[in-house]
Amino acid sequence: MRRLLSQLAHVEILSPRPSETVAFFEQQLGLEISAREGQSVYLRGWGESFHHSVKVTESARSGLGHVGWRTDSAEDLSDVARALATTDQGVGWIDGDCGHGPAYRFRSPDGHLNEVFWEVEHWQAPPELRSTLRDRPQKYTGRGAAVRCLNHVNLSASNVRACREFYQQHLSFQYHAGIFVDGTDTEVIAFLAVASLDHDVAFSMDPSGAHGRLNHIAFYVDAREDLVRAADIMRDYGHNTLEFGPGRHAVGGSFFLYLLEPGGNRIELYTGEALVLAPDREPVRWQISENPMMYWGGEVPQSWRMYVTPPDDTSASA
Amino acid sequence: MRRLLSQLAHVEILSPRPSETVAFFEQQLGLEISAREGQSVYLRGWGESFHHSVKVTESARSGLGHVGWRTDSAEDLSDVARALATTDQGVGWIDGDCGHGPAYRFRSPDGHLNEVFWEVEHWQAPPELRSTLRDRPQKYTGRGAAVRCLNHVNLSASNVRACREFYQQHLSFQYHAGIFVDGTDTEVIAFLAVASLDHDVAFSMDPSGAHGRLNHIAFYVDAREDLVRAADIMRDYGHNTLEFGPGRHAVGGSFFLYLLEPGGNRIELYTGEALVLAPDREPVRWQISENPMMYWGGEVPQSWRMYVTPPDDTSASA
Amino acid sequence: MRRLLSQLAHVEILSPRPSETVAFFEQQLGLEISAREGQSVYLRGWGESFHHSVKVTESARSGLGHVGWRTDSAEDLSDVARALATTDQGVGWIDGDCGHGPAYRFRSPDGHLNEVFWEVEHWQAPPELRSTLRDRPQKYTGRGAAVRCLNHVNLSASNVRACREFYQQHLSFQYHAGIFVDGTDTEVIAFLAVASLDHDVAFSMDPSGAHGRLNHIAFYVDAREDLVRAADIMRDYGHNTLEFGPGRHAVGGSFFLYLLEPGGNRIELYTGEALVLAPDREPVRWQISENPMMYWGGEVPQSWRMYVTPPDDTSASA
Amino acid sequence: MRRLLSQLAHVEILSPRPSETVAFFEQQLGLEISAREGQSVYLRGWGESFHHSVKVTESARSGLGHVGWRTDSAEDLSDVARALATTDQGVGWIDGDCGHGPAYRFRSPDGHLNEVFWEVEHWQAPPELRSTLRDRPQKYTGRGAAVRCLNHVNLSASNVRACREFYQQHLSFQYHAGIFVDGTDTEVIAFLAVASLDHDVAFSMDPSGAHGRLNHIAFYVDAREDLVRAADIMRDYGHNTLEFGPGRHAVGGSFFLYLLEPGGNRIELYTGEALVLAPDREPVRWQISENPMMYWGGEVPQSWRMYVTPPDDTSASA
Repeated sequence: MRRLLSQLAHVEILSPRPSETVAFFEQQLGLEISAREGQSVYLRGWGESFHHSVKVTESARSGLGHVGWRTDSAEDLSDVARALATTDQGVGWIDGDCGHGPAYRFRSPDGHLNEVFWEVEHWQAPPELRSTLRDRPQKYTGRGAAVRCLNHVNLSASNVRACREFYQQHLSFQYHAGIFVDGTDTEVIAFLAVASLDHDVAFSMDPSGAHGRLNHIAFYVDAREDLVRAADIMRDYGHNTLEFGPGRHAVGGSFFLYLLEPGGNRIELYTGEALVLAPDREPVRWQISENPMMYWGGEVPQSWRMYVTPPDDTSASA
Repeated sequence: MRRLLSQLAHVEILSPRPSETVAFFEQQLGLEISAREGQSVYLRGWGESFHHSVKVTESARSGLGHVGWRTDSAEDLSDVARALATTDQGVGWIDGDCGHGPAYRFRSPDGHLNEVFWEVEHWQAPPELRSTLRDRPQKYTGRGAAVRCLNHVNLSASNVRACREFYQQHLSFQYHAGIFVDGTDTEVIAFLAVASLDHDVAFSMDPSGAHGRLNHIAFYVDAREDLVRAADIMRDYGHNTLEFGPGRHAVGGSFFLYLLEPGGNRIELYTGEALVLAPDREPVRWQISENPMMYWGGEVPQSWRMYVTPPDDTSASA
Repeated sequence: MRRLLSQLAHVEILSPRPSETVAFFEQQLGLEISAREGQSVYLRGWGESFHHSVKVTESARSGLGHVGWRTDSAEDLSDVARALATTDQGVGWIDGDCGHGPAYRFRSPDGHLNEVFWEVEHWQAPPELRSTLRDRPQKYTGRGAAVRCLNHVNLSASNVRACREFYQQHLSFQYHAGIFVDGTDTEVIAFLAVASLDHDVAFSMDPSGAHGRLNHIAFYVDAREDLVRAADIMRDYGHNTLEFGPGRHAVGGSFFLYLLEPGGNRIELYTGEALVLAPDREPVRWQISENPMMYWGGEVPQSWRMYVTPPDDTSASA
Repeated sequence: MRRLLSQLAHVEILSPRPSETVAFFEQQLGLEISAREGQSVYLRGWGESFHHSVKVTESARSGLGHVGWRTDSAEDLSDVARALATTDQGVGWIDGDCGHGPAYRFRSPDGHLNEVFWEVEHWQAPPELRSTLRDRPQKYTGRGAAVRCLNHVNLSASNVRACREFYQQHLSFQYHAGIFVDGTDTEVIAFLAVASLDHDVAFSMDPSGAHGRLNHIAFYVDAREDLVRAADIMRDYGHNTLEFGPGRHAVGGSFFLYLLEPGGNRIELYTGEALVLAPDREPVRWQISENPMMYWGGEVPQSWRMYVTPPDDTSASA
């Protein structure tokens, strides 16, 4: 099967308290600021070579700005854009943004703004941050949780199935796992990947039926011990931002720690996923009663299911 | 201050399903069987040099058999026994047991049977278990959770204060930390140590006011990663025996995983405590509302407070 | 770019002491035996869903049997086989082997036997090994080093460049990193991947100019702590088989532990690699004087460079 | 046996590049500065409650200033001082220093300056460093290697046996392990403890026969993973200061990482020791040919044995 996308490149999140959000990302998650422009600040992890993986934009409400995907080639960008333009979800081209070239924008069937692009700018470390490890875009600073890179985004959607099918059909996503209401085909969470990661995007059923909201963005850390260290730092510095974890998901077998950033958006620190290398692996199908979010580490708190951002938008409109 | 005891040496637990308890201890906790005698099986961890640290004895009900303490010298044994004999709690001398010499038995003010002794037998590894590390009593087998050694025992008591004061006064325990009902001097848990460990024994308020019951025994593992590995093994092999964790206690700052063995007794896997080296350190005083059992890792489940062994003995009699 | 292969599927190694090799793989690496047939034993790691990832075959000398690659689809198998048949390296079709269907065999320019195939048999865990984690092919046994899966193979070659170019041209490998003799284009090691792993195959300059030999096969473990645990187990059980590590490579930033199995072949335990997601990432070019094998962990021992299997075949003939 | 000392309290080291030494301790080891006075800077780890554990003093040459021990009580201080005053090693009382009260000074038989004291000042965290963990003297900052506390000091001595016997006889040290020249009673390293730690002080044979020099001071980290993280940070920030490790000692079974601070003194990061609880445990006796410094992790480099500070003082005079 032809693969059209090569990776999740960035997520823009909205914050009503942008300076606190940025300070939290920089000091406690350990991201580096790569640019400030207008009402936005761009950041990246120490292991990332692109210009940024997170864009924080000031806004009256928290939630998702947009999701940015890099295609697998320039030709794939043309083909994807052309195909998306034939759907109701196509929005149109923009010239680009800090760090990347022309992008075609579209909306998920639930209204989440997305874009695809090919041209990227590689971040150049200033001299004091150049690493002795040639493969590393910069030094490992060890600051705060010291997350390596963006890993995935979990979007809250009123219709999980419609989103999943659209991403499979038009963007060549592989469907890796799904959680269903017991004995039905009602999809509660769908996990999708552009290639071999466990998932690059998940769609989770919105508890209120609202559209276009954000459940969380996830950053990768190198080791399970990093989650322990992060939990300690959040408790000592983070003003009760821990939501739950560290623990282990049954679905995917990954290790997690969930917390809220000062702007209100949920952040996951994530590691230990198993890669999916076989192109013909069947999606793993779970029922809610199997408690697929938890292999061990306690109960999923009610907040995880009920709180998404923006929290006050519970009317069923995009 | 003269120290009378050198270490917690062993705990006898009672099991109504002794063969399953022993199989769990051997295969899933990774202990070695050092002897079988009568209705009892003796076990020890790979890092322990004495004959045994756990004695499992068949019984109609779960719970505590007795707790064994080693004195700091032969002279200390004489002195401790003589002093205990003058109290209402003295029971008398026994000839010894597998692996140790004459012991003086006494009861805690809540009725828990204890003994003190000096002479010990050192376990000799059979040839196939001899380690290449000269300091190690045997090879590191890596079997199951592969616990290193017994660490502490937590006794359920109707009167925490009376137990604490008796152990401080007659057995030279140091009082390291206490949890109190808010704004009162009512003690919920008291943590006591013979020397620099965080605690060798704790007394926890019995939820029913019964006497002489057991909250848990704890084994030490070398690293926090061992708790992750243990949680995985328990989930894959342990038939839903996980109670809660891995997580981190606020009191003591230690890392924990709680589970139930097939006989019904609670087991803690434990690591990461801070040693207490200063002889004049003040006991750390916590209020229940500060949630001292949890630094992170979720909520303490109701079961942890309400379930002790034997579970059916809720009458207030020893 | 069209990707033709989906993963490294298995490696056959030759052992003059096959029963000891198999016992080491089962007890100390923690692999499971999935079949015995003729002079061969088939094994797999607890995280692998195919029938086997290692085939141990009795032989007068150690070294490589063959390397097995799975294509990305049935159509890719046809196309790859057709293209290889037009080269001097094509060997021909075989009917298959335990666990997979028809395979087209070819030799690397240095003589290493390889095969490509599509049809695979999925391993079914016997009831006692079925996991509570639905994604897991079997329980996590925790036995020995408990390796998760095969990760890569490092082939010793008299002409690294010829091998690299052949794998890039005919098998769609991506060239991720190369080590060169200082100031020259002489390739010492070339690292190649079918997709986003750091490398699935490496070609290392044969110290004697011999052909078709094996430097090592590598298994993946989930955490750096697993390397510590493995080193302990090897020292206590492994009869001085440790060669070097644990340490960290500069190239790729991965963590390693090298050891020799009883048949004489080198085994690497490996973790912590950074994935390569960008299809246009330039190969990272290192000079030998930069010591790219070591970020920390000591010096590369002379043996690592000079000892390959079979060790006695130092004549320059395939 | 009566114990006279409760812990190693601090070490003063001399640095010809004091500002670089202090910057390294603060930024890369993660210590906090608690005072500056005269030509000295006082520092402590995040897990330490006393005023300081390290005093860095400007000096023309690197090496040891003095070692500070806390007694087990005020009475023990009187008794120890009185006993030391009767030996040739007694020096006399000083009024105290930043953070502690009157101290009696003495020299080891090899000339190392030591002091014993009882009164200590407890460090008070400024508001921004107060921890949410009541037991913690301050927040866990996670800065650099983030060492928890001082653990031990290793002194280079021309006559190891004389030092060991003096510390056992006059200061109640327990002799835990010794390394000997094969087949002789010549002591190469002696490991001694005030209580249950593996060792608080070691005496290592000086390679040149000089007196009173320093092999290293060691800081404790909580987990083996912290050594991995520290090695990464040292390689990225530390300007080639790594000497060797991470690895595991056979003697004591502890994990280590050795590096040099900018002033030239050796620093060990250390964890994973087994406590010694039995007062009658026999010292573990090793021969040099057993390679007791290394369980795994490579070879002990020549520098570890030959380089001590000050490096240029190789004349056999105190």
